[in-house]
Amino acid sequence: MNQADNRRSWIESANGHPDFPLQNLPLGVFSSPGREPRGGVAIGEHILDLKAALAADLFEGEARHAAEAASGASLNAFFALGAGPRRVLREQLQALLAEGSPRQARMQELGATLLPAQASCQLHLPAQVGDYTDFYVGIHHANNVGRLFRPDNPLLPNYKHVPIGYHGRASTVVASGAAVRRPNGQTLAPGAEAPTFGPSKRLDYELELGIWIGPGNAMGEAIGIGQAEQHVAGYCLLNDWSARDVQAWEYQPLGPFLAKNFATSVSPWVVTAEALAPFRKAQPPRPEGDPQPLPYLLDEHDQAHGALDIQLEVLLQTAAMREQGVEPVRLALSNTRNMYWTVAQMVAHHSVGGCKLQAGDLFGSGTLSGPQPEAFGSLLESTFGGKQPLELPGGEQRTFLQDGDEVIFRAWCEREGYPRIGFGECRGVILPAR
Amino acid sequence: MNQADNRRSWIESANGHPDFPLQNLPLGVFSSPGREPRGGVAIGEHILDLKAALAADLFEGEARHAAEAASGASLNAFFALGAGPRRVLREQLQALLAEGSPRQARMQELGATLLPAQASCQLHLPAQVGDYTDFYVGIHHANNVGRLFRPDNPLLPNYKHVPIGYHGRASTVVASGAAVRRPNGQTLAPGAEAPTFGPSKRLDYELELGIWIGPGNAMGEAIGIGQAEQHVAGYCLLNDWSARDVQAWEYQPLGPFLAKNFATSVSPWVVTAEALAPFRKAQPPRPEGDPQPLPYLLDEHDQAHGALDIQLEVLLQTAAMREQGVEPVRLALSNTRNMYWTVAQMVAHHSVGGCKLQAGDLFGSGTLSGPQPEAFGSLLESTFGGKQPLELPGGEQRTFLQDGDEVIFRAWCEREGYPRIGFGECRGVILPAR
Repeated sequence: MNQADNRRSWIESANGHPDFPLQNLPLGVFSSPGREPRGGVAIGEHILDLKAALAADLFEGEARHAAEAASGASLNAFFALGAGPRRVLREQLQALLAEGSPRQARMQELGATLLPAQASCQLHLPAQVGDYTDFYVGIHHANNVGRLFRPDNPLLPNYKHVPIGYHGRASTVVASGAAVRRPNGQTLAPGAEAPTFGPSKRLDYELELGIWIGPGNAMGEAIGIGQAEQHVAGYCLLNDWSARDVQAWEYQPLGPFLAKNFATSVSPWVVTAEALAPFRKAQPPRPEGDPQPLPYLLDEHDQAHGALDIQLEVLLQTAAMREQGVEPVRLALSNTRNMYWTVAQMVAHHSVGGCKLQAGDLFGSGTLSGPQPEAFGSLLESTFGGKQPLELPGGEQRTFLQDGDEVIFRAWCEREGYPRIGFGECRGVILPAR
Repeated sequence: MNQADNRRSWIESANGHPDFPLQNLPLGVFSSPGREPRGGVAIGEHILDLKAALAADLFEGEARHAAEAASGASLNAFFALGAGPRRVLREQLQALLAEGSPRQARMQELGATLLPAQASCQLHLPAQVGDYTDFYVGIHHANNVGRLFRPDNPLLPNYKHVPIGYHGRASTVVASGAAVRRPNGQTLAPGAEAPTFGPSKRLDYELELGIWIGPGNAMGEAIGIGQAEQHVAGYCLLNDWSARDVQAWEYQPLGPFLAKNFATSVSPWVVTAEALAPFRKAQPPRPEGDPQPLPYLLDEHDQAHGALDIQLEVLLQTAAMREQGVEPVRLALSNTRNMYWTVAQMVAHHSVGGCKLQAGDLFGSGTLSGPQPEAFGSLLESTFGGKQPLELPGGEQRTFLQDGDEVIFRAWCEREGYPRIGFGECRGVILPAR
């Protein structure tokens, strides 16, 4: 998998596509006008409709079974199958879609029935989220935010021992494109003795990697670190929308609640471990003086291959920019290498006390800021707690999000000898509070 | 509803039953040997099988529709119907089961097909839990625990303004009777610089009221305090099992995670608002100097009727007691009047920022300790942080739970001129760590 791979597809738009070449093939759930949501695979500017592919008898053996599990209105059953069937399906998909495929003529005949244009389709949440857990493994974010909330002890003593996480709200996880309503809530004005109620004035995004869980574990039985990757179905982008003023007032002692549970957006395509395999890296060595992970978090293979090299980008387009036809402007460029803990460590930690994971559970990584301001993954960090506004095209400024602002996340992997693999977008526009 | 009501049932065991007289009629999901789980209603020592009742054509009109929604393997569809159909079903059930019912002969004919003995059935989780939220509205518990974790500021400044809550783990909510495996986790020994990994040594229970959510709200739309009660399907007992040593080390800054997510037990019967109506009370006046709730948490009817007068009991039976035939011993007797916030305030707060509630969501109230040690709802409180062991029959002592210990919660309502209404039990025995 780490060899060069420049295979091309007979679907011309896939070759050189910034997100969806033959080497990616992420899965998702889509609908075209007047038809029920169903599973599909992104290839260039098109979606391979898995229901139509099954009807055309394009798959064999285990791949047929996997395609059936992935062809409904949610991918949960497909996630539950695990890595084996997923790989077999991927191989048959690549064979079908590669240049020189013996099925090319038959597939072209089916036209938009089999391969509708993405532009004509709506994308949905790819799975029913059972439980959603948000981690906090971006160490630069933890440092930056810790400094704002707790100047005396930005990074708490447990941070380098525990992959810190907390439970989030599953019912408000939405697919990219869903508008996000500014929440009302209690906030405490600086110097005030009593809180007031109203629309959040410090609405923010958080740039995160999302992780879809595949096969689960029985309650009471931990997933060992060596097996942890087998329980991951795929990856996406995740925006952990946050109302900072609500959060500051409510979060002690039990953690964020209304500050986060009004919405969480994810990119709709599930990028598989197979597509990301060429972009695996060794975990960066821990800084001098940092403790070694406890044995249940330590695995040789994970140390050598557990990190992911994914570029993460935040863009913003205000209502004024949109009206004037000004393109979204980049606010940050970061990378998943800013994770202090790997995904395998997150899975192993989550289940080590016996917590049951299930296919369709979702993890967020926590905000993945880099060490420098141009890589900060939230406005809270980029504006130094709202003190230094960002300058935008047309003379606009932002400390926190205004109504009508659209936040856009993008992500991709690049390396020599391999086509670029992208995640697509995770978008959300802010609606005024009710 | 607040009149005296001494109606009797032709099912003799219902009359004078400590939990399930004609005036209660809680709903649940049960199975008898060799048959699929299905909905039923507790009456005395029996369960009225709703599938069998439908087959025997016992209901009419809207009640039939409600019984159909409640007759499957989970009550989610029934919860979603709301209070109207629930009340109509209750009225027809009471008419069917009351002394002098014209259908008595027909129902008796059906015998155990319609009315199996509870002792021959297994009880299940009554609904698929979408999201589970744990509140913290027991003010004495917040004070007691705050003092142990944060001697300087036991009750944080937000407590009397915000019905504090956080998201819990839905996948590990289990029905009474499921054994609970002691979790492994990271803990920091007193004075140690680095954590160690192993079985929790400070395993505890938390005595809570559980609240099942009925009809939900659309994302982005709040539920007003005046409508909040209409979104509650019913009540149960809830044990928020807690590993105190894991919690102390992990909970900053984002709240409890592995300390709680290994298991949460609930009693299987859903006691309705209608059954509890005679036990409604006015909210106790807030102590002198406490702030008034913000307007979105304030409602005249809720102030006058929002409190519930439910007795809550904790019992313990150790393995040694069980072997020697010693009955469970009471560790605490408390009451839901120790809630600082009402259920309506919890619902209104949860949704005020636009968080979507759905039928089958579960709330925990938070530990409902009274002000005195004999009403403390956790061992952390009863043993003053593990410093003063409890004395048990046979010379045993406990600071925290030992393997083989069984914790039993019971709850009931009593008042003059009305039969006692009970919740049944919420039980769980501790298995050794893996």
